[in-house]
Amino acid sequence: MSELRLNRATKEWIILAMERAKRPHQFRKKSGKEKLPAYDPSCPFCPGNEEKTPPEVYALRGSVSKSNRPGWRIRVVNNKYPALVPEEKIVKITGRFFRIASGLGEHEVIIETPRHDLTLATLSLRQVEETCSVYWRRYRALEKDKRFKLILIFRNHGPTAGTSLKHPHSQLIALPLIPANIRHLLEEAMRYYDDHGSCVFCDMLSEELDAQKRVILEEKRFVAFHPFASRSPFETWIVPKKHNACFGNIDRHDIKSMARVLRLVLKGMYDRLGDPDYNFMIRTAPVKDAEEDYYHWHVQILPRLTTPAGFELGSGVYINTSLPERTAEFIRNRD
Amino acid sequence: MSELRLNRATKEWIILAMERAKRPHQFRKKSGKEKLPAYDPSCPFCPGNEEKTPPEVYALRGSVSKSNRPGWRIRVVNNKYPALVPEEKIVKITGRFFRIASGLGEHEVIIETPRHDLTLATLSLRQVEETCSVYWRRYRALEKDKRFKLILIFRNHGPTAGTSLKHPHSQLIALPLIPANIRHLLEEAMRYYDDHGSCVFCDMLSEELDAQKRVILEEKRFVAFHPFASRSPFETWIVPKKHNACFGNIDRHDIKSMARVLRLVLKGMYDRLGDPDYNFMIRTAPVKDAEEDYYHWHVQILPRLTTPAGFELGSGVYINTSLPERTAEFIRNRD
Repeated sequence: MSELRLNRATKEWIILAMERAKRPHQFRKKSGKEKLPAYDPSCPFCPGNEEKTPPEVYALRGSVSKSNRPGWRIRVVNNKYPALVPEEKIVKITGRFFRIASGLGEHEVIIETPRHDLTLATLSLRQVEETCSVYWRRYRALEKDKRFKLILIFRNHGPTAGTSLKHPHSQLIALPLIPANIRHLLEEAMRYYDDHGSCVFCDMLSEELDAQKRVILEEKRFVAFHPFASRSPFETWIVPKKHNACFGNIDRHDIKSMARVLRLVLKGMYDRLGDPDYNFMIRTAPVKDAEEDYYHWHVQILPRLTTPAGFELGSGVYINTSLPERTAEFIRNRD
Repeated sequence: MSELRLNRATKEWIILAMERAKRPHQFRKKSGKEKLPAYDPSCPFCPGNEEKTPPEVYALRGSVSKSNRPGWRIRVVNNKYPALVPEEKIVKITGRFFRIASGLGEHEVIIETPRHDLTLATLSLRQVEETCSVYWRRYRALEKDKRFKLILIFRNHGPTAGTSLKHPHSQLIALPLIPANIRHLLEEAMRYYDDHGSCVFCDMLSEELDAQKRVILEEKRFVAFHPFASRSPFETWIVPKKHNACFGNIDRHDIKSMARVLRLVLKGMYDRLGDPDYNFMIRTAPVKDAEEDYYHWHVQILPRLTTPAGFELGSGVYINTSLPERTAEFIRNRD
């Protein structure tokens, strides 16, 4: 028996394939957690190697320490191999059929801690709060640049999640255009808003809280749950209770609450699944849509426990081998 | 320097990140080709193990051989762990907010050869022709079932492409609905058709043939090229010259030509990159749109040479580290 489930916000269907179902504990990493040294002299993100990265654009550091020297708690630098760069040129659309735009944008690395061996799941709450607050500061700084239309903050953890450097870090990319995917997401949310007079994410949150089956954590300001139409086992969404299209609009209480929930969710996966590889993305509205009623920013965490293959690539439909109701229960039962 | 490129058909942007550029030969697999035995007694797809799979739904076999016994050249069986099953029930949409449909559909495996150690790149031309002809036969058989809205044929080659069984095989999944991704693809193609009075895939083909920079193979009926906005290094599209929305509409001459081009393209990658993992998908219109003027079926081959990470998942924009003009040149220079 299988079933198809629709994500009402993204309008994406997923297939829950019971014939291939695995029990939640079967996703636990067999190789176990990797032991890293607290300091790696060859790591460009470790203290003392500040000259191995481009100069810092922002840092939290002790008052006596100097820029691009040790003494920082969090450090933001431009990516040494940036996907996009903040050139002077205005974006140009050229060609009759083939369209090219200049690679205008920003690509930053947020080094979350001087410690080589920690990660968001094992950092202190204060350090995760500071990380979230740096996300927010960089977002606010970059949204002022009118050339940037969408600012993405994301994190790749582990080799199958696409990271090449082990030192804990997140990334930020500012794009000079709104990608089709995001446009479609907004259009679907707008359509729902027109039809129902409410935000689909607000409705999803209230339905998840009513059902309680997939909620793994609820705080005053944020809720974490495994979505009804999870694309992969242990997919987790962290959604603010207060309607808000834009991550940049949150206040310092939100940042603290977001950090608490994010850290607990990642710690739950770390403990119960043995430090799995994952990606997380802050899904926020394009800068110009920051005040819209139909979109609602949130965090998506996608553990890399299954491999999307030809079917997923060809259809956009994900085959999930685990019931989100069961994975949520597994994560809640922490003892 | 980077640039953004737009795929006019899908409306997806990609980033060509020159700062991280690799030369084409650097994508060559370091571990080399895996040596497999011609026959593996524990493989459920090897001859003699026919009882280890569900009964065959179709086969090409010698006239004296019996169903579900050795003697076949190509064998189609239902997937033992199907994502979807052809139940009697009609698809039901239930729930006020949460939408579920029964997992109605079909999930077949096309075993391409009795030989455990071969693959489409190394099979004889005749065997690849028969494989393509079996794809077509299964498509035609399933499109008659009015419950199926979209029929996807795809192939996963290698562990990073999501395959668990090494014996050469393709898969087919018939879906009871049209996924959002495909709907968006069709809408974009329809919009282009409205604006330009022509099919965007026909226009792309003629532009690629004019430019010649990214074409790797041209035959009377099919053209293979690395798309202008390739999502990953060595992404390859095989597009029929004759406008046709539906794979099921092709004739036996098309099948022969498709097989020739597919085999040569895969052999090129096999030889030049050392048997890389890849997915391929036959991108055809939903069954009801088989005669539309705005869509054009084609084959997409995506080698797994890079790892889509948080940025790709969050934005739908792919970062490609290689110019398609260069990878095409590398593949063309076969000596």
